[in-house]
Amino acid sequence: MKANEGPGNGAEWLRGTGGEADIVLSSRIRLARNVADFPFVVRMKAEQQAELARFLEQGIMGADLAPNMRYVDIDEADELEKLYLQERQLISRELADAKGKRGVSVGDMERISVMVNEEDHIRLQVIHSGFELDECWAAADRCDSLLGERVRYAFSPRLGYLTACPTNVGTGLRASVMLHLPGLVMTKQMKKVFAAMAKLNLAVRGMYGEGTEASSDLYQLSNQVSLGKSEEEIVHSLKSVIPQLIKFERNARKYLLEHGRVAVEDRVWRAYGMLRSARTISSQEAMIYLSQLRLGVNLGMVKDVHIDSLNELFILTQPAHLQKLEGKKLEEDKRDLARATLIRNRLGEV
Amino acid sequence: MKANEGPGNGAEWLRGTGGEADIVLSSRIRLARNVADFPFVVRMKAEQQAELARFLEQGIMGADLAPNMRYVDIDEADELEKLYLQERQLISRELADAKGKRGVSVGDMERISVMVNEEDHIRLQVIHSGFELDECWAAADRCDSLLGERVRYAFSPRLGYLTACPTNVGTGLRASVMLHLPGLVMTKQMKKVFAAMAKLNLAVRGMYGEGTEASSDLYQLSNQVSLGKSEEEIVHSLKSVIPQLIKFERNARKYLLEHGRVAVEDRVWRAYGMLRSARTISSQEAMIYLSQLRLGVNLGMVKDVHIDSLNELFILTQPAHLQKLEGKKLEEDKRDLARATLIRNRLGEV
Repeated sequence: MKANEGPGNGAEWLRGTGGEADIVLSSRIRLARNVADFPFVVRMKAEQQAELARFLEQGIMGADLAPNMRYVDIDEADELEKLYLQERQLISRELADAKGKRGVSVGDMERISVMVNEEDHIRLQVIHSGFELDECWAAADRCDSLLGERVRYAFSPRLGYLTACPTNVGTGLRASVMLHLPGLVMTKQMKKVFAAMAKLNLAVRGMYGEGTEASSDLYQLSNQVSLGKSEEEIVHSLKSVIPQLIKFERNARKYLLEHGRVAVEDRVWRAYGMLRSARTISSQEAMIYLSQLRLGVNLGMVKDVHIDSLNELFILTQPAHLQKLEGKKLEEDKRDLARATLIRNRLGEV
Repeated sequence: MKANEGPGNGAEWLRGTGGEADIVLSSRIRLARNVADFPFVVRMKAEQQAELARFLEQGIMGADLAPNMRYVDIDEADELEKLYLQERQLISRELADAKGKRGVSVGDMERISVMVNEEDHIRLQVIHSGFELDECWAAADRCDSLLGERVRYAFSPRLGYLTACPTNVGTGLRASVMLHLPGLVMTKQMKKVFAAMAKLNLAVRGMYGEGTEASSDLYQLSNQVSLGKSEEEIVHSLKSVIPQLIKFERNARKYLLEHGRVAVEDRVWRAYGMLRSARTISSQEAMIYLSQLRLGVNLGMVKDVHIDSLNELFILTQPAHLQKLEGKKLEEDKRDLARATLIRNRLGEV
């Protein structure tokens, strides 16, 4: 199977394009909105929630936010489909696990998506490959206006957009970037980064939540506050810190190459060797090696692997994607076999 | 560099030929002899020892034990040369570390060698690839007779050949085989083997002494007693137990393939991947992967690697061999680099 075939196909944010894409995998803007005259999701009765879901599905599909929008009824989706959408970052675990009528609308390339009846009535997401926060914000703002023509948002002149959780009140905006920071991890500087980001009211999380930080070296950095600042200010406050982080990461890589080039090369090539030879591999182990190989590709050590293939493998080797690819439900040991086979096929067997 | 080039070239016992060569790497017979009218080595004065060394060098070289015999003055050899000869199993650590005039005479293919002034005046060794104890004994017996025409051995009609250590008195014979037992190691049956062998008065040791057992899965099995039995009886008692051990090992491999084929394949291929991609590797780690790969080759999983190349790599990756290959003294970290490079060159880079 070639890169860009199968269910990994289509997500623009995996392409490895955009600014500083060796370190910034993707940029993302999320807007929380609620519809006036409807209670928040937690307070709605089932019938009301169903009515709102129908209304929003029509509104979103009619607003023409992106080409080829499709709507997925999450309350009718099976567990595999829900996990699959989570792995693609199109729905949250909260939406997957919730009850009642709810869904997600997804456009071409998966750049634009809208969750319906998650914590808020509307969660609009724009995600781009690379360091492209301005572009994401411009697209999100445009979608927000288009949707606003069809839906009357719950809005307070004093507070701004009203949301179910007070942390989202105001702009309802969360801006985030996904960063690959193997240099800072290897030089044991992530604690410093966490502390510095906390002071700036920025949150740092592992790619797939707790426990994955140390393995994939992928971190999501996002704003914590959405009230009391304009959207542009929030985007800018995140945006302005990224070049510094990129510089720290580049310095860490430079340090590693100057003080332990052999060790870095050894780690990179062993990871590549493992990925191309293992017959069974866990998701965790695959993430570790993929991350190490990604560093090697970005350092120019490994020349015959493309970043988009690697970005895709981070997603394709997740449990639901593997099962989609195989076309059937698989127990863990069979997934480990399928994962190893997929990786060998993609990277070329030893 | 191709197999059979460089300093690994020439040792017949690495060829992977002979009976049951997938499990029995080599067979070896050693005879301890002393010269009548000379004290044992520990009791000799330096002048006497030098006189005996000259006498024995002439005697051995004149006896025409093997084609192209050469004599190495160990007392004039540098540390690297001594370590190199130890790694090739041509001299003992005792001979390397001893004082005074001493040496080793080595014939073509390194099948026949004679240490001079080790613990005994004469230590004759015959080593063959595969399970070939009878052939080794026949060659050793022939050499013993040829040498006996030129040297009057210290012999007692009641005790047999007299030796410096009482454990060698009688026949002065030690018979041993080098076995590759990864199946028994993986199925955790080596303790049972140790106990069974002890009951038969057979000793089991790791290839390079203590501490290497667990890593290379290579074990040396030898007789403990040389008194009270004829040479043929001693050889036979070792020889008769080997087919059973081979059967145990084959059963263990069969069991592993039936109950955990994926795990074995995974281990084999990862070892192969590591060996072909590592940029720096310790001797210990190399031994582990070479052993796992050797199993994979013998199980028919890996088809493009030859057993003689692997047998050679066990030797060539040892410290002195690496330094000989590089033509200079190397510190440990440089050896680890050279070792990884050598292995990649031999097995083909990923």
